[in-house]
Amino acid sequence: MDQNIRIPVERMKSEFTRILKKTGSSDLKAEKCADIFAINSLEGVYSHGVNRFPRFVMNIREGFIVPDAEPALVNGTGSMEQWNGNLGPGPLNASFATGRATELAEKYGIGLVAMANTNHWIRGGTYGWQAARKGFIFIGWTNTEANMPAWGAVDARLGNNPFVVAVPFEREAIVLDFAMTQFSYGKMETYKREGRKLPFPGGFNAEGELTDDPVEILNTRRTLPIGNWKGSGFSLLLDILATVISGGLSTHEITKRRVEYGVSQVFIAICLKRLHNFSSIENTVIRIINDLKSSNRENKNTAIRYPGENIVKIRNQNLASGIPVNKELWKEIEAL
Amino acid sequence: MDQNIRIPVERMKSEFTRILKKTGSSDLKAEKCADIFAINSLEGVYSHGVNRFPRFVMNIREGFIVPDAEPALVNGTGSMEQWNGNLGPGPLNASFATGRATELAEKYGIGLVAMANTNHWIRGGTYGWQAARKGFIFIGWTNTEANMPAWGAVDARLGNNPFVVAVPFEREAIVLDFAMTQFSYGKMETYKREGRKLPFPGGFNAEGELTDDPVEILNTRRTLPIGNWKGSGFSLLLDILATVISGGLSTHEITKRRVEYGVSQVFIAICLKRLHNFSSIENTVIRIINDLKSSNRENKNTAIRYPGENIVKIRNQNLASGIPVNKELWKEIEAL
Repeated sequence: MDQNIRIPVERMKSEFTRILKKTGSSDLKAEKCADIFAINSLEGVYSHGVNRFPRFVMNIREGFIVPDAEPALVNGTGSMEQWNGNLGPGPLNASFATGRATELAEKYGIGLVAMANTNHWIRGGTYGWQAARKGFIFIGWTNTEANMPAWGAVDARLGNNPFVVAVPFEREAIVLDFAMTQFSYGKMETYKREGRKLPFPGGFNAEGELTDDPVEILNTRRTLPIGNWKGSGFSLLLDILATVISGGLSTHEITKRRVEYGVSQVFIAICLKRLHNFSSIENTVIRIINDLKSSNRENKNTAIRYPGENIVKIRNQNLASGIPVNKELWKEIEAL
Repeated sequence: MDQNIRIPVERMKSEFTRILKKTGSSDLKAEKCADIFAINSLEGVYSHGVNRFPRFVMNIREGFIVPDAEPALVNGTGSMEQWNGNLGPGPLNASFATGRATELAEKYGIGLVAMANTNHWIRGGTYGWQAARKGFIFIGWTNTEANMPAWGAVDARLGNNPFVVAVPFEREAIVLDFAMTQFSYGKMETYKREGRKLPFPGGFNAEGELTDDPVEILNTRRTLPIGNWKGSGFSLLLDILATVISGGLSTHEITKRRVEYGVSQVFIAICLKRLHNFSSIENTVIRIINDLKSSNRENKNTAIRYPGENIVKIRNQNLASGIPVNKELWKEIEAL
């Protein structure tokens, strides 16, 4: 932890903005994109914030992300629209698509935006928070390159295809953001580096047995789908739906590229204001959360949490003290 | 297996129809409901077909299911509608809601029907097949009574909240239908009866350790959410969404009742015909499935399957040979 320094969110954002302008982003796009990376860091999702930023810049420099591309409407058909992301920055395309889905939901009740030919959205939760803060339920997902074997297979043909569900809650939100693998490669690398076992089995060893040893799983690359055959099936369906609804590339097509780019995404919004029970929704959700929290805990010192609950606390800590960043990483970023 | 007899689907359907008419169903409703139970059995989902039928009849007789209730529109707001199921038979309400969601999707692109105050839909896959056969993508879910502890808790506060995703495929469909617990209570009872361990851990023993012993899990009732904390969060969000969007009861409210009735459900349909890439969708899905099936198998004799793939084979077998039913169970049904 003493390898970390604390960077105020505004300084991080202005640094990211400076670098993105150098890579060819317009002022407005550089600022928006910098804001998303800085907020992800502020909210404690460092793996999809400051730690990921250098790779994002590299992807722009290598031409996989087109910094000033604008999404274009391909097919508007009532409550559903198909857009081409034109290989623009994933966070900007996803944020645009989320906003557009909420506009459709406002007009129709439920709205869907599918986007082909876009890029890694970095942190899926970003778009859940965006929609929920404006009073919408959000359901969204992305496909990815293949990084998980199907159930019964040893080679990766499925993506981990992160899936997000969000609902407004007490001026903040309940945001679930999960991938179809039990642990990400990043998480397993961390456990390996620290010489630790995973807290639960996360994949298969060379003998085809479930294991909690990250070294063995990083060797076999046989990651475990959540719920075994269930997560395998869910990943397949998420890829089929994203590909079909967007008219974009599927996991097996993305995987043929050297670098993951040009992915397919779906953004669904539901407008709470249009529900007959709108005025009672806040209390309904509070009662559900209160019931959850009244669970008998396995460990008296470990509270039962709803997804996204910790975000508010971490955000406030990092607002007060600055965002923790590895010293060497920050030097690297300042040199970009 | 020699305790089983084979019943032709038409005979099963007419027997179910006869019984449902006696419980107060109109001819039309009795036939529709009998059809769903018979088809579920024909397609090999016996637990949600013939094996479940006596309990369904009992629930009608006890007044929890109102055999002739009609769903009523509470709030129509464009591409989204809220309905009151009026405690009608779950399969009829769910089939109606699915049909209505496809009508909304045909008109708007994506359509959603939420239903409050309805009943157990029996087999979720039924509605996925229904929508997909007509050319729609389907996403739907139901809440249930509490039967799964939240992650870190020892008492059940969450439902297993089955979730269904379906897409048309080669005149049939790919249908994923999964609950948030790794194994159902029914499945664990079967393993216990047969004196077998579960194929994978399915819950926690009294020491709080993961176990594959169904007896231990049936004692603690600490069932395992798929993907550990991930399935716990997904279950919570599915309940919140079903409750909020339908304006109906949540898992904690349903659980207060002696018998599970009056649940909340969501039915989303997406119209493929309205997509700009409609003509290429069939080939797109075939290519994804072909890639999946070209996986390197762990066991050369075990094919990699897509969700619902076995249904067609089982349906054809049971059409040819009749539906296998336990002799005693069939006697019990004939006596109803």
